Order: sequence, then C-alpha cells, then structure tokens
Amino acid sequence: MAENIVHLVLARVSGAPEGVKGISLFVVPKFMVNGDGSLGTRNDVHCVSIEHKLGIKASPTAVLQFGDHGGAVGYVVGEENRGLEYMFIMMNAARYAVGVQGIAIAERAYQKAVTFAKDRVQSRPVDGSIKASVAIIHHPDVKRMLMTMRAYTEGCRAMASVAAAAYDAAHHHPDAEVRKQNQAFYEFMVPLIKGYSTEMSQEVTSLGVQVHGGMGFIEETGAAQYYRDARILTIYEGTTAIQSNDLVGRKTARDGGQTAKDIAGQIEATESQLLDQGSADALAVAKRLKAARLAFVDVVEFVAANTKASPNAVFSGSVPYLMLAGNLVAGWQMARSLLVAQEQLEKSVMGVDVGFMKAKITTARFYADHLLTKAPGMRDSIVEGADCVTALALEAF
Amino acid sequence: MAENIVHLVLARVSGAPEGVKGISLFVVPKFMVNGDGSLGTRNDVHCVSIEHKLGIKASPTAVLQFGDHGGAVGYVVGEENRGLEYMFIMMNAARYAVGVQGIAIAERAYQKAVTFAKDRVQSRPVDGSIKASVAIIHHPDVKRMLMTMRAYTEGCRAMASVAAAAYDAAHHHPDAEVRKQNQAFYEFMVPLIKGYSTEMSQEVTSLGVQVHGGMGFIEETGAAQYYRDARILTIYEGTTAIQSNDLVGRKTARDGGQTAKDIAGQIEATESQLLDQGSADALAVAKRLKAARLAFVDVVEFVAANTKASPNAVFSGSVPYLMLAGNLVAGWQMARSLLVAQEQLEKSVMGVDVGFMKAKITTARFYADHLLTKAPGMRDSIVEGADCVTALALEAF
Repeated sequence: MAENIVHLVLARVSGAPEGVKGISLFVVPKFMVNGDGSLGTRNDVHCVSIEHKLGIKASPTAVLQFGDHGGAVGYVVGEENRGLEYMFIMMNAARYAVGVQGIAIAERAYQKAVTFAKDRVQSRPVDGSIKASVAIIHHPDVKRMLMTMRAYTEGCRAMASVAAAAYDAAHHHPDAEVRKQNQAFYEFMVPLIKGYSTEMSQEVTSLGVQVHGGMGFIEETGAAQYYRDARILTIYEGTTAIQSNDLVGRKTARDGGQTAKDIAGQIEATESQLLDQGSADALAVAKRLKAARLAFVDVVEFVAANTKASPNAVFSGSVPYLMLAGNLVAGWQMARSLLVAQEQLEKSVMGVDVGFMKAKITTARFYADHLLTKAPGMRDSIVEGADCVTALALEAF
Repeated sequence: MAENIVHLVLARVSGAPEGVKGISLFVVPKFMVNGDGSLGTRNDVHCVSIEHKLGIKASPTAVLQFGDHGGAVGYVVGEENRGLEYMFIMMNAARYAVGVQGIAIAERAYQKAVTFAKDRVQSRPVDGSIKASVAIIHHPDVKRMLMTMRAYTEGCRAMASVAAAAYDAAHHHPDAEVRKQNQAFYEFMVPLIKGYSTEMSQEVTSLGVQVHGGMGFIEETGAAQYYRDARILTIYEGTTAIQSNDLVGRKTARDGGQTAKDIAGQIEATESQLLDQGSADALAVAKRLKAARLAFVDVVEFVAANTKASPNAVFSGSVPYLMLAGNLVAGWQMARSLLVAQEQLEKSVMGVDVGFMKAKITTARFYADHLLTKAPGMRDSIVEGADCVTALALEAF
C-alpha cells in the first residue's frame, strides 16, 4: 500500500511582502488526496538526491525539487505570511530538545566506554598494587576520562531538568510574579542548554572513542558513531554562535544583565550553603563555584556595557561567554546535588542509596576541580582578549 | 605483473625467552622469491578482512592470518629477540612524525575553512557597518574560530620546528655539552609534539566543520574528512595517555624536573625580552606567558615530588600536564615569533613582508589571550584536583 509523505515548506505566496515578512508555511503532500481519503495523483515534488553525511545516517537529508514538472500543490498552514513565526514555535522547542539530545548521546557514550574499560585488560597499575595486567578502568587516566564524561553529562542533565521545572512553573504557577521570574530563568537557560550541552557532547563522545583506543576508530565498535552523530548537534537548529547571539542580545544586553545577575545571586546563595555544610568536598566546590561566578559576573558586565557601543568586541567573545555560563550553571547544579546527597547521607534517610549519593558527591567535586576551573581563564579571554580576534586584516587570512 | 608485499611482524622464535625479551622482528613476504628474483610460490599469509574505520580510509587496516594452511615463512630482521628494540626505532621517529601529521591536517582544515568563510554570504555585520549580507568571515565569531585554528597550528608548527633544530644540534653540534642539552630538550619535546599537536588537531578540524555550518556535515564538502582522519592521531603510535606517561616518568620525574625547569628558565628569558620590547602586544603576551609558566613550574614540582610516593595522584593529571606543557611551549614559540616580527618591522628590514609580520604579531597575541589563558586553571585541576579522579568506587561507574 502506498503511503503519503507530507513536506513542510517555507515559501511565499504571490504578491507577498519582501523579506522574512512574506514567508508562509505550506504543507506539500507527495500524493494528492481524493475525497474518499484514498491517495490520488502524484504531486510535483521529487527527491532528486540524498546527501552523504558524517552522521545521523538513519535520518536522510534530501534535495527536493518542487514544481519542475508543471507545478506542485501546497496548502498554506495557518495564516499567510506568518511562516517564520510558526517555524520558531518548532525551533524554540527544538533548541531545548537538541540540548537534551546532546546529553543523551553523551550518556550513551559514557555507558559504552565504562563497559569497555571494565572489560579490556592492558598493563599493570602504576601504583604497583597488582602485579598483573588489569582492566583499563584501574588506570588513573582512564578514570579521568570517564569522570570527565560523567561530570559533563550529569551537570548538563541537571541544568536541563532545572530549566524544565522552570518552564512548568512559568506556565502553571498561581503567582504571576513567580511565573515571570521562571520564564526569564528558562529563557536564559535555553541557549546554554542547546549550546553548552551539544558542545560538551562533542568532547564526551570524543573521549568515548579515546577510552576505546584503536578499537574506537573501528566503526564496528560503535563509539565512533556517537562521535559522528553528535557532530551535527552544535550546527542544526541554530549553531552555537547563533545561540550565543541570543544569549548576548536578547538574554543579557536587553535587560542590562539583570537576569544573569539574579542567577549569579542564586549561585552565591548556594556557595553560602556549601560553606555552612562545611565538608571538605563542599568547601572545595564552594571555592571553585565562587571563582567561576565572579568570572561570569565580570563577563556579564562587559556584555551589558559594550554590546551597543562595541558590538564586535562583545561578539568576539559570545561563544566563550555561552560556554562559561553553561559551565557555571551546570557546575552550580552539581553543587546543589552535592548538598542534597550530603544531607541524605548525614540524616541516614531510610532506604537511601549510599553508593549513589557518594558517587554524586565525588562527581560534583570532580566537576568543580576539573571543569569549573576553566572559567577564570575564559573570563580573561573574553574581557581582555577581544581586540585580537578581529584585528587581522582580511587578506592576511 | 604480480607485485610482492612484505609484512613486518613481531613474533617469537621457538625457545625464545618469555615476555617482551623474546620478541623478534620478522619480514614475511606475500610471495617467496626465486633465485633469479622472480616471484615464486604463495606464502601462507592471507588478508581475511579489511576493517571499516572512522577515517584514513586510503590506508587499509587488515586482519592477517599467518600459517593457517601449513605454515608461513618469515625471515628474522637483525638479531633474534631484539624485535621490540627495533620497533621503537620506528616508533620514536613516528611520534614526532604523527605530531607533524596533526599540524598538517590542522593547516589544511584552516585553509579550507578560510576559503569557505570568504565565499559564503550570510547575515549583516553585527556592527551595522554594511547594510547587506556579507561573507561570514566578517562575523566576529567566525574570525574567532579561524584565529583559534590559525594560532594552534602556527604554535604547534613552531614547536615542532624548534624541536627538529634541537635534534640536529643534538647529533651534529661540535660541543658535547651543547649536544647533550639539545638531546634533553628534544626528548622533552617529543611527547608534547605528539600529544599536544594531535589533540589540537581534533579541535581545529572540528572548528573547520563548524565554520562550514550544515555544509560541514556533508561529506562532499571535505571538512568532515579532516575531522574523521584526525581522530586516529591521538590514538596510534601511542595514545595521548602513553605520551603523558613518558612525559611524567622518563622526561620529568627521572631528573627531578630539571629539564622542565631549564625550559621554564628559557621561557622566563623570553618574558624579559618581551618586557624590554615594550609594545602593547609584547606586554600582553609577557603577562600570559608568565602566568602559564608559573602554572607549569608548579605542576613540574608536583610531578617531581609525588611520582614515586603518590603515583595515582600524579598520573590522574598526566594528560592535563602534557596539555599544559604543550600549550606553554607552543605559546612560548609564538612569543618568540612576535619578537622577531616586531624587530623586522621596526628595523624596516629590506623586503620584509609587512602583512606577514603583522599577522604573526596578532596571531601571537591571540594565542596568548585565548589559549595560554587556559594554563592556570589546568594547574589547579592537576595540583589540587587529583583525589577526586580516582575516588569513585569501581561499582559506581
């Protein structure tokens, strides 16, 4: 039985205004549909080639030809000339979803790397504790790679979860002021979730290949597929640069950095809780979180002060700003997780999974000591290093 | 006409000692050779499969079967039981060469990205300087990506060139003490050139894909091939972790960090020259170089003091130490390039390529402000963040 396919197409009706204001959304079916619901004549839309892509090969990307054989029939969706607005309904949801896609593929790469590292035997431990070759998960550098994968993934997942809760509160909380605050928080999070989680998925899937060594380079192993598939995530539904334009323009400069500073204030409150908690892990995390927050606030002030006057300087650091902000917020959520885990352990909550809680604390500590430590250097690059980004003459490239 | 193929095989002669001491190197031809030089009977070595790899597909990796049909003939190369020693002659040369491979593919990715960025038109400039869509090289974030690719590539190439000169001096300088110093310098450089240049080639080829946007994900464009091909470079001829073991053990701990500190002393001398030079670029580079050098020296002291007593702590940070050292040395060479370029410009040397010299200065400044700025954070991770790398219980992974 023949099946119908429906294409969603952005195009213009005749006489539409110029530019984006004249774009409408159309549904273009492969087959026309008869009055009784059965498939009728073939519409004039044809797939003329399938692209050969680096990854996501189960999701074909095609070149489609419309109307070359007499004209294709399309139906306007909604109202004429509102196509771009409709597309952004999809796009805004997709940005969050693609961020989650990055987290999901990172998690899968982590699980696969852990399984391999527990199985593959190579070399004796460097500390001489075992006089025979061991599974490679015993080697400190393999642990470092796995911890990096784990910390990134857990941090980004926590960030996405908190943003999703804010989205719900923004729509359903009874208090209008709370709805407004949650909406602002959610909107600030979206470019971080999309931009940072997908950038981190590149690093995590690459580490996944590295843990596998030479086997990782063989497609049969499967680690390379995550690496190839993840590579689209920083590109589609708006590249990381497009997300960072949104972060700089609509999410930071427009309100003079107020939402960003409110978030910094919440992070400072978490630091106080960590200091009150007082464990060695909590204190170490508080120290890194504070340094990263101060770096973030410097950058926010730089962005708020200069976006209008020196747009080239600000946009020279827009992606590093997004990466710093995403790193900070994910690390903040790990710090909050640490507080919950330590409370659960100290109160000996009934049925608490002690191993899970301890692992959460160690992972939060790792995030702080190995990932949050990047933030101050990024601040220096953004705030003090803008000029040399755009200084090179075009002909010198 | 049939051609012969020769396989180099590590195996053991009967009665050889156990372990690596009993390994010999063999030549195993595909065809036996007759007395008159013509090809004789087929040897019992067969290719039973070709691996499907992520990249370097023009260099097939095969599963070979030896002797399953009666026995293969192989000829010992050199002396029996010295096979591993012979292999390391190849391996040591290959480590330097694979580092250069990383630099070469990074350069190619950069050139391709520049060509695309000058051609592809999209969006107006953020500073409003042109009221029409422009080639994307005008956008600050595209410039940032291209400058990152360029700075990494030039820095690593300078590092590899300086190491090659040291290798020559180590072999041919008339003064034995100078030969010795150059040999120590070269040996310290090899893990950095192999490890750091190949790790940077992953980032640079990934940025090359990113500059191309969606087109970068289409194999036809070619950017994705560099990304796939580069992925083997941190794995073969010893993974980055293996290079970092060499850097920690033989190159740092063995002489108590003396060679590393000698190099730090040379870097400090470059800082003095930058301060004497006194231009804004020289002063900015001096500041970053100093911070990175101090970070490096802290790590060297940590490694020298703890490799024996706390090997797990040191090897938890061995790859970050390699990355910090490579970053510093490449940035140092960029700083030296800046000094030469500024001297050439100030003395108005006859026939000097002014554009080239200016570009070198800007690229050195970019390296300092955007790449050397990573060093202090890496120091913190290595020196203060070792415990959490190995703290997680195995069953928690």
